Amino acid sequence: MSELRRDPIVNRWVIISDDPIRTPDVSPGTERVSQYDFCPFCPGNEHLCPPEILANRPSDSYPNDARWALRVIPNRSPLLVVEEDFRRMGEGVYDKITGVGANEVIIETKRHGVRQADMTAEELENMFWAYRDRIIDLRRDSRIKYVQIYKNCGAASGATLSHGYSLLMALPIVPRAISDEIDGSRKHFENKQRCIYCDVIRQEAQIETRIVSETRMFVAIEPFAPRVPFETWILPKRHCAHFDEIEPRELSDMASIFKDVFSRLDIALSNPTYNYIIHTSPLGNNNDEYYHWHMEIFPQIKIRSGFEWGTDLYINPTPPEACAAFLRGLVV
Amino acid sequence: MSELRRDPIVNRWVIISDDPIRTPDVSPGTERVSQYDFCPFCPGNEHLCPPEILANRPSDSYPNDARWALRVIPNRSPLLVVEEDFRRMGEGVYDKITGVGANEVIIETKRHGVRQADMTAEELENMFWAYRDRIIDLRRDSRIKYVQIYKNCGAASGATLSHGYSLLMALPIVPRAISDEIDGSRKHFENKQRCIYCDVIRQEAQIETRIVSETRMFVAIEPFAPRVPFETWILPKRHCAHFDEIEPRELSDMASIFKDVFSRLDIALSNPTYNYIIHTSPLGNNNDEYYHWHMEIFPQIKIRSGFEWGTDLYINPTPPEACAAFLRGLVV
Repeated sequence: MSELRRDPIVNRWVIISDDPIRTPDVSPGTERVSQYDFCPFCPGNEHLCPPEILANRPSDSYPNDARWALRVIPNRSPLLVVEEDFRRMGEGVYDKITGVGANEVIIETKRHGVRQADMTAEELENMFWAYRDRIIDLRRDSRIKYVQIYKNCGAASGATLSHGYSLLMALPIVPRAISDEIDGSRKHFENKQRCIYCDVIRQEAQIETRIVSETRMFVAIEPFAPRVPFETWILPKRHCAHFDEIEPRELSDMASIFKDVFSRLDIALSNPTYNYIIHTSPLGNNNDEYYHWHMEIFPQIKIRSGFEWGTDLYINPTPPEACAAFLRGLVV
Repeated sequence: MSELRRDPIVNRWVIISDDPIRTPDVSPGTERVSQYDFCPFCPGNEHLCPPEILANRPSDSYPNDARWALRVIPNRSPLLVVEEDFRRMGEGVYDKITGVGANEVIIETKRHGVRQADMTAEELENMFWAYRDRIIDLRRDSRIKYVQIYKNCGAASGATLSHGYSLLMALPIVPRAISDEIDGSRKHFENKQRCIYCDVIRQEAQIETRIVSETRMFVAIEPFAPRVPFETWILPKRHCAHFDEIEPRELSDMASIFKDVFSRLDIALSNPTYNYIIHTSPLGNNNDEYYHWHMEIFPQIKIRSGFEWGTDLYINPTPPEACAAFLRGLVV
């Protein structure tokens, strides 16, 4: 079974699985997304996947039959499972936790090999609806502290199949990236009684140089201190800590700005590999006043070097103002 | 010019350069380390590099002539320069600092295309001596808060030339990875009046399962919570916060364990790409009692996915105990 282990010096958690040692037959980034005709995520192959947890399907269809628009299934080899008991254990100076959680796959559409930019508005709304629905469901398990939803597109970003899918990892701890954001936004709120993300949105709207795209309810920006070229954030204008409190009218607006942003990135970077991540409030935490959910997008066009590994600083060769101007200037 | 920018939410610094936009012609990880016959780092081509800052050369040779065993030169396009004035600037909610610092290249040996495992003991001692010497020299500039020495080996790890070189980045801030370690080790010291790294070394020596290699003065371990398979740390047994206080007798012992560890990794992973990083105390800080310098090695055999980007948690498929047993079992 997997377990979570804590580094005793910097409190960094790692999920340690117990796969046998595999010496690598491919370098990181080598194309290995399967392109074979046969795809386990295509309609008709449901019997090859674990039974669905959630699906968007017509009312006269049956669970796990081929008539669906979106499906959520458990990961075939889940890293974390709800069946595990939550236990904290010590080992001298070290700490660990049993691998409690969940590990799910959101099959975004029945159409094979579609990039985010080519999904229809309806498909995208389905996808966000499924993200939301899964978080709401997992909230009922009090051992789950955070639900991380993310997407790997392309082999160099960690994808292993070319049928579009997102991933969900429900965790018994709050990840460091999120607790850092919570701490930072709490401090700002204590100083100013304002949300730091709302302040950022206001300042960006005023100076305009880092805006990529905007709709009535959302804005997409290149952040002031991006880690990689073309790092892009999508933020709701309405202050809200929890992604799963997204409103129906926001869903369609989100689909629209999402499609616009990914269309621009696909043109600018010739269909890049990328990751995107939803940052939302930990479950059960009371930080509604100062946290602000958002999505972060990382096109993977730059190699992470020893500098980044050693420092947690980043070297970014391209100013976000240049990237934003370039993306804004494209005709989509 | 480059500048350092701070993310207003999580206090993460990024070095933003001002290169023109380059849409990528290679994916991350694609082989692009130049293999042409001609190499600017080979003896005889010194005129193609900026003038040397430091060299290991016979007493009857001249700066920048071809008779050297190791050379340190400034980066041709340095990200940070000592000529810049140190200035902090605000921009609404945002903060930045001018690009003060240094960016140097340590050409490790005159022999082209040699991997760390194939360097002689003398070459390795030269290299560590140069690392040490450059830190001592840069200490004199009080604007420099940290000197990061690191190595990218192979294209997928960020290397751009196949002649062996290490990199040095002198920074006007203490990187987050280091201040996290300082904070963590200070807390442990306040609780226990002991160094956490010394505690780790003692515990690892006792249980033995994560030991990779050992000499009289150093130990190499797979850490308890490694971020990637085969992540390896080399630690001095003598408690010391500053790498540049390494003693002459430790230098040769360090060369010996270093060569052993890299020989094992090269056999285990078929000459992997990797990064290594020296973690040492910030300059001018008074944390001698609780910080402990060390080296961290990251073989790059696993792709960083959206999960890692989103959470700062890591998923590591292989337990360090299995990696350590595998490495120990190899005949070098």
